[in-house]
Amino acid sequence: MSVAMPTTAPSAHDLADCWSRLRTESPLTQCLTNIVVAPFTANVLLAAGASPAMVDNPHEAGQLAAVAGAVLVNLGTPYDDTAAGAREGVSAALSSGTPWVLDPVAVGGLTWRTGLAHELLALGSPAVIRGNASEVLALGGGSGGRGVDATDDTASQAVRDGAGAIARRHRCVVAVSGAVDHLTDGERTVRLAHGDPLMTRVTGVGCALGALVAACCAATSDPLVAAATATAALTLAADTAVQTARGPGSFAVGLLDELAALTPDQIEERVGLC
Amino acid sequence: MSVAMPTTAPSAHDLADCWSRLRTESPLTQCLTNIVVAPFTANVLLAAGASPAMVDNPHEAGQLAAVAGAVLVNLGTPYDDTAAGAREGVSAALSSGTPWVLDPVAVGGLTWRTGLAHELLALGSPAVIRGNASEVLALGGGSGGRGVDATDDTASQAVRDGAGAIARRHRCVVAVSGAVDHLTDGERTVRLAHGDPLMTRVTGVGCALGALVAACCAATSDPLVAAATATAALTLAADTAVQTARGPGSFAVGLLDELAALTPDQIEERVGLC
Amino acid sequence: MSVAMPTTAPSAHDLADCWSRLRTESPLTQCLTNIVVAPFTANVLLAAGASPAMVDNPHEAGQLAAVAGAVLVNLGTPYDDTAAGAREGVSAALSSGTPWVLDPVAVGGLTWRTGLAHELLALGSPAVIRGNASEVLALGGGSGGRGVDATDDTASQAVRDGAGAIARRHRCVVAVSGAVDHLTDGERTVRLAHGDPLMTRVTGVGCALGALVAACCAATSDPLVAAATATAALTLAADTAVQTARGPGSFAVGLLDELAALTPDQIEERVGLC
Repeated sequence: MSVAMPTTAPSAHDLADCWSRLRTESPLTQCLTNIVVAPFTANVLLAAGASPAMVDNPHEAGQLAAVAGAVLVNLGTPYDDTAAGAREGVSAALSSGTPWVLDPVAVGGLTWRTGLAHELLALGSPAVIRGNASEVLALGGGSGGRGVDATDDTASQAVRDGAGAIARRHRCVVAVSGAVDHLTDGERTVRLAHGDPLMTRVTGVGCALGALVAACCAATSDPLVAAATATAALTLAADTAVQTARGPGSFAVGLLDELAALTPDQIEERVGLC
Repeated sequence: MSVAMPTTAPSAHDLADCWSRLRTESPLTQCLTNIVVAPFTANVLLAAGASPAMVDNPHEAGQLAAVAGAVLVNLGTPYDDTAAGAREGVSAALSSGTPWVLDPVAVGGLTWRTGLAHELLALGSPAVIRGNASEVLALGGGSGGRGVDATDDTASQAVRDGAGAIARRHRCVVAVSGAVDHLTDGERTVRLAHGDPLMTRVTGVGCALGALVAACCAATSDPLVAAATATAALTLAADTAVQTARGPGSFAVGLLDELAALTPDQIEERVGLC
Repeated sequence: MSVAMPTTAPSAHDLADCWSRLRTESPLTQCLTNIVVAPFTANVLLAAGASPAMVDNPHEAGQLAAVAGAVLVNLGTPYDDTAAGAREGVSAALSSGTPWVLDPVAVGGLTWRTGLAHELLALGSPAVIRGNASEVLALGGGSGGRGVDATDDTASQAVRDGAGAIARRHRCVVAVSGAVDHLTDGERTVRLAHGDPLMTRVTGVGCALGALVAACCAATSDPLVAAATATAALTLAADTAVQTARGPGSFAVGLLDELAALTPDQIEERVGLC
């Protein structure tokens, strides 16, 4: 495809618009994800208004990817069987023009999945790569992560430079999650500082964000707007949920409630883009 | 088996009786289900008073099915390995007289699992097929579903006719979930109109219903009573849970609480059978 | 290793100390566990302050086990692929000196996994075996369990004798969960009577305990202290959570909240060791 890339930075209004379309269109969002976060991911997508479909076997992953609104590939618990499913899903997404999102969980620290991530990227560009700083840097050859924890801060220049370089190399948006979320397509950059440390005490919040990014990719042609909308929605919902949470259990419940209640107008009013 | 089929329509008292037996007997309910809904399914069964056992590998699925009270086969995320487990489980259930329930998730829309569903049905009759309208119609050759969403209304004559035809062909109960739940064994029909749209905003509610139908099949010899009891229990619990829910997160929590609290008397008093 | 075994019984202070170190060190706890409990297990570990990593494929299980703080192997839903992962993980743990914990879910009742459990134990001693009475007795040749339910009481002399014999044979701690939790290394014994029957109405509480035992094994060199700390923490959190729970759904949420809030001082003050 040779689509003209957008050159203006996403505005709060763009995010509200994308969220509104997600709600209206309820895009079929195919998730090839891991056994730990699959339930919470599906619940986040349903709360947001998308239609999740967790089809990750190699017999069907390509068939669905050809008609889905977007495809998420999350490498949290890959197996030979689902790795084959990921190859099928990404190939079909690329040949059908379906945007796909890569969440390179623990890439860098673990050898096999690091090879798989590079193999998938070699098939063609994703719309978005979403991960924490160490995972994203590892894709560019940096030091690997420690499991799924972030060990680098998005405030560091190395992370900013690394994210930009990877975005330009793979012609995609790179969304680095952290206390400040850093999103870039290699030219434009969006930073958001919403959210709460409790998000790291609930399994799958980052992974669900990857899925929500995919759903938003089905609702806008600008993947930077998609990544920013998903990030804004989940972190703004977290800002509200944390106010009544007694701990990580009630926070996770409240996060789903708040995400379902979040309106486009609230996103436009509350989001801070830096 | 040539058991005389019941000819009278299930009464509210029959449902209360089945629920009471489920509570007392706590039947071992084997679930071959998908990675997205396995946790919620187990929690629904535990809340209801059944004993879930998620054994789905081909080495053991048959061994357990031979002694289980009932077996659920849910096709949400099938793999070669668990498809082999499903064949073993269904074969052993059939030769042991263990009732089995088929939940044909996304059948019709996806080719491989559609073949698997037909293959399992060719082994012998399930006690109950539970799905949404498009999935059930697809089993009869109708148009396929869009992922796991319902795209047909149980109010339509096509759905009613299709459900009855499939029930007669496979000599089983067909339970079509929707705003109105339509259950039939091809002769008798039960319709229930409890529940809330929030049930579609939590992943696995329909799948958990399939598992609860299986558990109830272990508590009564009439699979139409089983399907009606499970449907009544889950939707009545939803009716209560929705009153205090702030969104899909708290609704899912409340659904488990209310299901655990639901008594046979409350089912008999509150259920509306049409 | 020929480390001198501790000879004094764990004190409340030892448990508080272990809990404090878990909080400070946040050990990387690798879980090879089942599809039903993986999300809750990860959430329990995160609430406790550990860093879960659910890596169970045979390509990577050994690589991570060599550097993890501890490894849990839970046999809830084994497949050929993850059984191979378990062999790799345990072998690497043993050669690297990483403590590993075995949770023999449904061993005894199901043949294939019983063989797998014995195969893993033959590789070398785990730090802890955690299960219910029937599962633990089955490892010693006793009668098998009925799925994952406990069918023996830890009050029985047969259970106490069986646990001690298995601990001595495998040179490990045996932690038998029940209304009273019975923990022994074959010489020293700890019994705890906290917790609530609601713990059996939420899927994965026992499995999450196994994971928490593993995390604690990374925070102390005495696996009996580790098993006692994990058991005390989870059951004391349950004692608090049950006070406001309306049923199993809200209890599970509260359990995570209370576990996150539990301090070392509270463990030392509230725990009853018998």
